[in-house]
Amino acid sequence: MAGSRMKLELSRVVQGRGRLGLLKEVGRMGQHSVDIPGCLLYTHLGSVPHLTQDTLHTISCLPAVTHVTLSNMAEHQEVLEEFKGGLKKFAGLHDTVLYCSLHDPAAHCPTGHTTNKTVSVWGSGGRIELTAAKFMALQKTVQPDWYQSMADGETWQTGTSQKRVRKSVDRTLAHLDECLTVHQKSQDLEGVDIFGVVEGGDILEERVRSARETAKRPVAGFCLDGFQTGAMDQALRSQLITAVTQELPEDKPRLLHGVGRPDEVLDCVEAGIDLFEGFFPFQATERGCALCFSFDITPNPERAAPDEEPHTAGGTQLNGDVNCDDQTHMTRFEMNLKDKRYQDDFRPLVEGCGCYCCRNHQRAYVHHLLMTNELLAGVLLMIHNTCHYHSFFRAIREALANDKMDLLRRSVLWNGKE
Amino acid sequence: MAGSRMKLELSRVVQGRGRLGLLKEVGRMGQHSVDIPGCLLYTHLGSVPHLTQDTLHTISCLPAVTHVTLSNMAEHQEVLEEFKGGLKKFAGLHDTVLYCSLHDPAAHCPTGHTTNKTVSVWGSGGRIELTAAKFMALQKTVQPDWYQSMADGETWQTGTSQKRVRKSVDRTLAHLDECLTVHQKSQDLEGVDIFGVVEGGDILEERVRSARETAKRPVAGFCLDGFQTGAMDQALRSQLITAVTQELPEDKPRLLHGVGRPDEVLDCVEAGIDLFEGFFPFQATERGCALCFSFDITPNPERAAPDEEPHTAGGTQLNGDVNCDDQTHMTRFEMNLKDKRYQDDFRPLVEGCGCYCCRNHQRAYVHHLLMTNELLAGVLLMIHNTCHYHSFFRAIREALANDKMDLLRRSVLWNGKE
Repeated sequence: MAGSRMKLELSRVVQGRGRLGLLKEVGRMGQHSVDIPGCLLYTHLGSVPHLTQDTLHTISCLPAVTHVTLSNMAEHQEVLEEFKGGLKKFAGLHDTVLYCSLHDPAAHCPTGHTTNKTVSVWGSGGRIELTAAKFMALQKTVQPDWYQSMADGETWQTGTSQKRVRKSVDRTLAHLDECLTVHQKSQDLEGVDIFGVVEGGDILEERVRSARETAKRPVAGFCLDGFQTGAMDQALRSQLITAVTQELPEDKPRLLHGVGRPDEVLDCVEAGIDLFEGFFPFQATERGCALCFSFDITPNPERAAPDEEPHTAGGTQLNGDVNCDDQTHMTRFEMNLKDKRYQDDFRPLVEGCGCYCCRNHQRAYVHHLLMTNELLAGVLLMIHNTCHYHSFFRAIREALANDKMDLLRRSVLWNGKE
Repeated sequence: MAGSRMKLELSRVVQGRGRLGLLKEVGRMGQHSVDIPGCLLYTHLGSVPHLTQDTLHTISCLPAVTHVTLSNMAEHQEVLEEFKGGLKKFAGLHDTVLYCSLHDPAAHCPTGHTTNKTVSVWGSGGRIELTAAKFMALQKTVQPDWYQSMADGETWQTGTSQKRVRKSVDRTLAHLDECLTVHQKSQDLEGVDIFGVVEGGDILEERVRSARETAKRPVAGFCLDGFQTGAMDQALRSQLITAVTQELPEDKPRLLHGVGRPDEVLDCVEAGIDLFEGFFPFQATERGCALCFSFDITPNPERAAPDEEPHTAGGTQLNGDVNCDDQTHMTRFEMNLKDKRYQDDFRPLVEGCGCYCCRNHQRAYVHHLLMTNELLAGVLLMIHNTCHYHSFFRAIREALANDKMDLLRRSVLWNGKE
């Protein structure tokens, strides 16, 4: 049978507030634990963009799970096969859980190439078509601890027909069955966990059917697909996720694809999500931005009226209250360090932040690195943004433990709304 | 009078073989020493491209002198002035000697903009024209420990008329006198060293005149300008440098602009050069190459016939035996990791290299990072190339100390020639 070593121990569940817990015995050897709600470590080919492993490990709050995608990996299959040691060894990773999903949440994935028997991923060399057999051959080569099953995820666009959505749910279940058959026969995949994928677009009954049917299979957990930022507004997303999670067993984790904005993360935690993809700090880095939203909920009267609202000023483009198709726009949760206002701002990116960048450099220096296209700017921003974002997830867990989710939400939304 | 704290102690001088020594009491507080022959640490705005200070300091053999240029700095003058603390503090540098020169040796500098009273530098925002007064105001803002005097360096092109060369020598001496006048009156520049610049194009008598006249001024050392790769062939360069250094006092250091190729460095050491700019590892990194030339002169019969000549194969473009105007071409001293032959090469970049990249990753991984445009590729290559290049300078000093320069030259040239 499928690996399914991982065990979810929930320590606190309040309906409409989220689940707090610990995912135990994660990884092939069962030696890792993952805090819930949690976030995966976003990588390309196993490497966090810009950062060496040494630099990465100067960051506190790093997640236990490294996330790679077949869209980055598929074109390297031959070499990985020849290498034999699997991706962890190839990429020089140590002591981490490797999770392999299908698509890169930070990259655009063209639609219209899915067939009954195949899905397509886009690497740097173009499109690669995957049958379930090829998909599973890739998993044996990558040697993850945990992967998502193959899925037809092309029904997230508003207005997709019910017929197309139904077909996507059916295909995804058929892919799962095919993956499970190969998985269960494979010695290479012994002890490896597989997550089933819940599809269904924006149609409630298809979402429920997809969840129910997937839950009948021997999967270790669930990926909720097609809810990414830009696909639907948050009210509908929360409603659908709530309906889906009610169909899923309490004791298995739920991972959400494509949602990274802090306000949306909070809503989705409350709708019953346990795990998120960690691409948001990378996107902010690539646009020259530093995450600066607050998640501090310790009482401090001095912070009641902050003296600055860095992300709302300077004529920068905002993407705060609307869901926008384009995930590459700046959001209210970050400051655009390319803005001229930072050229003589000699404060750290975020006052009190303990990351390498904030301890050693000022906004003005990062601004000047960006203005002169210095590659160190990306390194420094990626350090700060990774640290800031994963600290936010720790704050979510603390807020859940102490019944302070409302306070956390106010803190996160403060700068933009008031 | 000018600072001129630094003292050169030569421990071994063999005519036509080079000078071995120690430059002592370097830096405003006189607390640093620099091994001769040596190489400066190349930076943009104080940062080694791609590397944080933390990552940088994992590299052994790092030079004591950080090199910045006014071409990177001039456009930031206002902010630096407002910041007040000087560039070292602005860029988060600790415990290093800061040397400030005029032009970036790795960037193209358009000609035709020099006047009697001004020189121009090119930053990311375009051309900035500097009078001697503005040049000196910048030095007061940057607060280096050591800087080169303003110079008209536009006479390196073959075929420049004798009249133009003479004018360049005269102007450069006039600039030096003007700089010295400001320098000697300035409290801000107390304890700071200034180097005079020797010009003269490819005309022997102007070179000699420039050297003699500059040596009469109270400078701490000399920059030899207009000898950069592409300006002339090595035979002429060596002849002119030898003639120049014979005019210069023995006890002051000579820094050469624009020469970084290992074979040319060896020739120039033998012609009497003490210090080099360290831009070569950066150029190799930007073209996706790893430095792989050998500088190991310990006897080892197994290495007599190396099993590989990585940089000559694979149809890659070489720039070995000719001086080429374009410094951006690959040389014989590196391997092009974008080449398909490395896609399944699971060895470290250089066997036996102790750098972070070689200890943790294989050629195949760096190849795949380059192929998918991962920014970590630049980080890893910059770590290796910086380590390799500065280890080469240590090998030069060891070879000089042990009379093994011929052996070192054979080792460096081996792969390309045989």
